[in-house]
Amino acid sequence: MFDSFEVKSRISGAYSVSFISDFNSRLIKIIEERDVIFVIDEKIVNLFKDDFDEIIKTQRFVLITSEEKSKTIDYSQDVIRKLIALNVRKNDKLIAIGGGITQDIVAFISSILFRGIEWIFFPTTLLAQCDSCIGSKSSINFDQFKNLIGTFNPPKNIFIYNEFLATLTESEIRSGIGEMLHYFFTDGISLAQEVSDQYDELLSNRSKLPYFISNSLKIKKRIIEIDEFDTSIRHIFNYGHTFGHAIEAITNYSIPHGQAISIGMDLANFISLEKEILSSEDFDLMHNILIKNIPTFKITEDNIENYCSALSRDKKNKGNKLGSILSKGPGKVEKVFIDLDDSLKNMILNYSIKYCRA
Amino acid sequence: MFDSFEVKSRISGAYSVSFISDFNSRLIKIIEERDVIFVIDEKIVNLFKDDFDEIIKTQRFVLITSEEKSKTIDYSQDVIRKLIALNVRKNDKLIAIGGGITQDIVAFISSILFRGIEWIFFPTTLLAQCDSCIGSKSSINFDQFKNLIGTFNPPKNIFIYNEFLATLTESEIRSGIGEMLHYFFTDGISLAQEVSDQYDELLSNRSKLPYFISNSLKIKKRIIEIDEFDTSIRHIFNYGHTFGHAIEAITNYSIPHGQAISIGMDLANFISLEKEILSSEDFDLMHNILIKNIPTFKITEDNIENYCSALSRDKKNKGNKLGSILSKGPGKVEKVFIDLDDSLKNMILNYSIKYCRA
Repeated sequence: MFDSFEVKSRISGAYSVSFISDFNSRLIKIIEERDVIFVIDEKIVNLFKDDFDEIIKTQRFVLITSEEKSKTIDYSQDVIRKLIALNVRKNDKLIAIGGGITQDIVAFISSILFRGIEWIFFPTTLLAQCDSCIGSKSSINFDQFKNLIGTFNPPKNIFIYNEFLATLTESEIRSGIGEMLHYFFTDGISLAQEVSDQYDELLSNRSKLPYFISNSLKIKKRIIEIDEFDTSIRHIFNYGHTFGHAIEAITNYSIPHGQAISIGMDLANFISLEKEILSSEDFDLMHNILIKNIPTFKITEDNIENYCSALSRDKKNKGNKLGSILSKGPGKVEKVFIDLDDSLKNMILNYSIKYCRA
Repeated sequence: MFDSFEVKSRISGAYSVSFISDFNSRLIKIIEERDVIFVIDEKIVNLFKDDFDEIIKTQRFVLITSEEKSKTIDYSQDVIRKLIALNVRKNDKLIAIGGGITQDIVAFISSILFRGIEWIFFPTTLLAQCDSCIGSKSSINFDQFKNLIGTFNPPKNIFIYNEFLATLTESEIRSGIGEMLHYFFTDGISLAQEVSDQYDELLSNRSKLPYFISNSLKIKKRIIEIDEFDTSIRHIFNYGHTFGHAIEAITNYSIPHGQAISIGMDLANFISLEKEILSSEDFDLMHNILIKNIPTFKITEDNIENYCSALSRDKKNKGNKLGSILSKGPGKVEKVFIDLDDSLKNMILNYSIKYCRA
């Protein structure tokens, strides 16, 4: 097992991350301790039926449908109504069990119910375990605007249970790997190289993942403890995300998040190379790792306008300048504002011609 | 003018309260400083038309209908849609101008939009100026539940402008006086006595009010700086509120809040007298002040069950015990858990027979 650790928070003082080997005994402990209500992704209950007997017995649980369209204020209001039907009180803790969407909904509700109640999180996807479970953010969509609404509200405790990863699809693992690579590349080359060396094994043997999850969280921890509210240094974690989000937008989110981020990093690196802040050796070193996690995808004359228009809507932009994180080599990222002009457009098309597979 | 002061906050560091004599020049300063969007109670715009020319010119404002039924998540979503139509951005400040309901809606929206944006508050009612403008709370109703939803989110600056009080009804002034008396009685007798001595003049000459507003806020400031999140000592400000809220509930909110609180304090004092923790001299001293601010109202055999049932729903209760703040004399309040039994019921009926006017 990996060591537990604490994340300092300006909101709650600190919160803990623990790797657990026994889900059931942890649940029983939580149920015995004090009044709690569970909010659980219904998929997880179906996949791990026997593990949820103790919770079902308490009759204090709400099942939620964890899909992107549930990430709304209205859906959150429905969940609050179900909590009220269970006689929720200010001293209750909400126990969230699910992936990032479950996290977003429970974190948001916990922020606004009774002016804030405590919550605990059992992340069940690789993306939630290696990334979103720490960092305090909740994100709720509003009309056509993604993540426009939200709060900073970390859980009190996070419990990471490896067995939940057993039922994930290969695509979900690849997505988590992309997100982890983005943390690893802000740190250096060694962890990214280890992922690359064990890439195929990681897809099939999920017991190998906690080592990387633990390292990913610890890299993130160092930065969010300094800049929890994402106003300065935490921006480095937009590495790959500015270019990746725009890929997700123009493909209607058909490419898994972490894989879009992998393309985003490779493209950011290519632009860094063109701008002569990254050596071609370092570009190749990182490209040979990233390429394993990059799906077929091309930016062409047909979709480049769409792509640039998606880039232009990024909330980190300043005027017509794209706020993007470029690379000067493994472990060295830098925020650069780039003009959204024909020169950038050509770089993107050249990248696609040289490195993407349709 | 009264001195500006700061209120320390665990959320924002500190926020300022300033008494201003020139609304227009302050507005122009705010408009010039940076991007802002005004959210204004439409009643205020109609009452003070000329004062709002500068704001109308910016075209960056949203008018809201400040009534109890606007204090919902759905209404807040409508306001957010209007802010989006004005191209609201994370760096914008929301400038709220209105009473407590305007405050609740803007504070709530500011908590959840872009994971929190700054806001500034110009309170326009006596209740908002003397009480709610500091203390960080926002309160939103949910279905039939009053103030179930909310956040802690103080404005960055509060500007108190006396002229806004000119158009308030006498009933609104009485309501504010009730709320101020509740602060004054937790502090001692002198300020409450001054209110009593000038009671009739305060109703007609509103320029007398800032002195009391300033003192009321300073008493509140001392406590909320210690217990911003209302988990301990801030409970003393429930003085008069537990018994007052139940009066509001059974009269369908027809008695103005601060006047219901005045009855609530008188009743809490009577119970303190019966429980022999308050002397009859101190009861009389406070009663003679409170009675000026108490409207006609009676609790009888007809409504006592309703009243006790409203008391039993108070969220500060523990089991069947009523969490109430009693008085040991001016400046000396104490939290006591009282059994909600026939003995309490009889005390309430006796209070009404002896001291209430139908």
